[in-house]
Amino acid sequence: MTSHSVLEFSIEKQGVDSQGVGRARAGRLTLRGAGEKTHSILTPVFMPVGTVGSVKGMSPADLHQMKAQIILGNTYHLYLRPGHQRVERLGELQRFMAWDGPILTDSGGFQVFSLSSLNKIDEQGVTFQSHLDGSTHRFTPELSMEIQRALGSNIVMAFDQCPPYPATREEVGAAMRRTRKWAERGLAFPLKDHQARFGIVQGGLYEDLRVQSAHEITQLPFDGFAIGGLSIGESPELMQKMAFFTAPLLPQHRPRYLMGVGRPEDLVEGVRAGIDLFDCVMPTRNARNGQLFTSQGKINIKNAKYADSKEPLDPQCPCETCTQYTRAYLRHLFVSRELLSARLNTVHNLTYYIGLMEEMRRVILEGGFEFFEVWAESFYRKRGG
Amino acid sequence: MTSHSVLEFSIEKQGVDSQGVGRARAGRLTLRGAGEKTHSILTPVFMPVGTVGSVKGMSPADLHQMKAQIILGNTYHLYLRPGHQRVERLGELQRFMAWDGPILTDSGGFQVFSLSSLNKIDEQGVTFQSHLDGSTHRFTPELSMEIQRALGSNIVMAFDQCPPYPATREEVGAAMRRTRKWAERGLAFPLKDHQARFGIVQGGLYEDLRVQSAHEITQLPFDGFAIGGLSIGESPELMQKMAFFTAPLLPQHRPRYLMGVGRPEDLVEGVRAGIDLFDCVMPTRNARNGQLFTSQGKINIKNAKYADSKEPLDPQCPCETCTQYTRAYLRHLFVSRELLSARLNTVHNLTYYIGLMEEMRRVILEGGFEFFEVWAESFYRKRGG
Repeated sequence: MTSHSVLEFSIEKQGVDSQGVGRARAGRLTLRGAGEKTHSILTPVFMPVGTVGSVKGMSPADLHQMKAQIILGNTYHLYLRPGHQRVERLGELQRFMAWDGPILTDSGGFQVFSLSSLNKIDEQGVTFQSHLDGSTHRFTPELSMEIQRALGSNIVMAFDQCPPYPATREEVGAAMRRTRKWAERGLAFPLKDHQARFGIVQGGLYEDLRVQSAHEITQLPFDGFAIGGLSIGESPELMQKMAFFTAPLLPQHRPRYLMGVGRPEDLVEGVRAGIDLFDCVMPTRNARNGQLFTSQGKINIKNAKYADSKEPLDPQCPCETCTQYTRAYLRHLFVSRELLSARLNTVHNLTYYIGLMEEMRRVILEGGFEFFEVWAESFYRKRGG
Repeated sequence: MTSHSVLEFSIEKQGVDSQGVGRARAGRLTLRGAGEKTHSILTPVFMPVGTVGSVKGMSPADLHQMKAQIILGNTYHLYLRPGHQRVERLGELQRFMAWDGPILTDSGGFQVFSLSSLNKIDEQGVTFQSHLDGSTHRFTPELSMEIQRALGSNIVMAFDQCPPYPATREEVGAAMRRTRKWAERGLAFPLKDHQARFGIVQGGLYEDLRVQSAHEITQLPFDGFAIGGLSIGESPELMQKMAFFTAPLLPQHRPRYLMGVGRPEDLVEGVRAGIDLFDCVMPTRNARNGQLFTSQGKINIKNAKYADSKEPLDPQCPCETCTQYTRAYLRHLFVSRELLSARLNTVHNLTYYIGLMEEMRRVILEGGFEFFEVWAESFYRKRGG
């Protein structure tokens, strides 16, 4: 496998912190697409989550409108329904869902542990019961690659073991060692020409285990590296601290992905730490629950105080939801459980997340790390945080 | 009230059947909008139903894309939530929902009888309990006008009594007489300058009562006339027969509206009878249930036979759903209960309904009634019906 043929990553500007460590950076990730296509992604970037073949409520045109550059698909869900072989027969995930941008698929490992019931793990893989119908299935590192190969995603994640939180040092250590072995087995499984691979660093909240896991995983010929095992129940402060600790342990010139993170402030802290890619269900899931992110902080649109508000949701925001509707209408749709509610809320939350990443990229390009620090201060001040 | 100032209706072409009766017709309905606006509607036309301030799942841009010319709002629902006075404070229904086209509101009468529990009717009005919270409310012809006035709709429907089906001749007769009295009381209630009024003919399935109701209602200074009391449980054949009987009883040069109808074949029969306006929840509700209308007949997208289908839903259809997605993907979204399912299905069903009306209009303009009869035959043949 020659990693550079399928993925290229160039750093346009990188800040250096007071300890001389490379931190917040703006880059460009180039992925070889299927056929003649090439996908160019400007980082830092947020990836909307399209769990089961759609970003809930969003059409591909909506995703383009909000300038989504890459989306995420879930291996566990797509394996169960509609089935990875079916997706492959129908032209792989991109064509299946009519999305012409790049897609990253996770390995299914996290869902196998968190969603399915009665999972049983051994050295070879994980046996679990489907959350849909209770049927028994078994994932191995090889099957995870086979599924992601069939889905045809542009970035394939290694099959790792994410221990629960809290976990003992022994449990985290064992999961970390298994993650390394599974990473090697996955690498031996051939993928399609246009598929890049990312390895995952585990190690929980133990700094020495993070150092060891990063050392082991970054020895392997991956095209990029992810920090796994965070945002699984620990406090945001611990998560941010561990991401800040782990990011510099990853190779400077490879893309870095902080999995499953997070709140807007977590994205700011992740970028500050030197992370390039993020994904989280928060903007989409919270949208459906009426929790909206704005430049002034969070809004619960159900709140009665919005019933007569002619104000836009976020006057700073260029999205359809903010330019065309009032808070009163958005509240009405939510309270009335109208289908349009989830859609408009999702358009806004994703636009906010993507816009926040664009803004951070601009700040880094314009002024480097010190300028970023000044910007971050004003970000927190505006939110009253 | 001078009806011509607020609504103008011109017939561009009208077919005449073998008995010399004016039938299928193509026209243009011009409504004075709020402010300086004028709305021009080409008929026959189908009005998508936006029950509670949105056509479920659709944005105004979607409605424009499918060439919706006018939509319907429900007085009963909007009165209960968010409240008509609130809608008025927020700029009337058009601005509230960010739809810049015209809106017809029903009178609330039908929902009061069909949706609310424990309704009690007397000469003055109807007392009922909200389907939302059981609270007690009372509608009168005057309150119905007051609500529709506040909503600011372009076409205001008279508050009528729609007897259930089946009903005795006495019950239907009593409802018909009350409908006439209520029509007069409604007419005495002042509306806004841009609001046209439609009267409603009742009379159930009794031809002589239809004659009498049509005679009485069309004496009143309404801008247009509707056929009510159909599509409430009787067979489609009876419904079509009664619409065909009643349509010519309405003034030739006023718009005719067949309320709550119907299936595609009912629209064809309605147009054949000489109807200009239609509304029905069927395309939107059935979309959410996976029932899709196509040029080849109905499709239940849940059917397993579509699981691997790379075909578009309807190859004849220009909508986003048919040009961008496969049946396999639409089935997957439906089976997985993805939000996008209802949206894509609704876009298609409404596009189909609106396209069917456009096609009938074209056929009438090109060839008149005989040509329409030929076209209708081919319409049924393609559907295998």
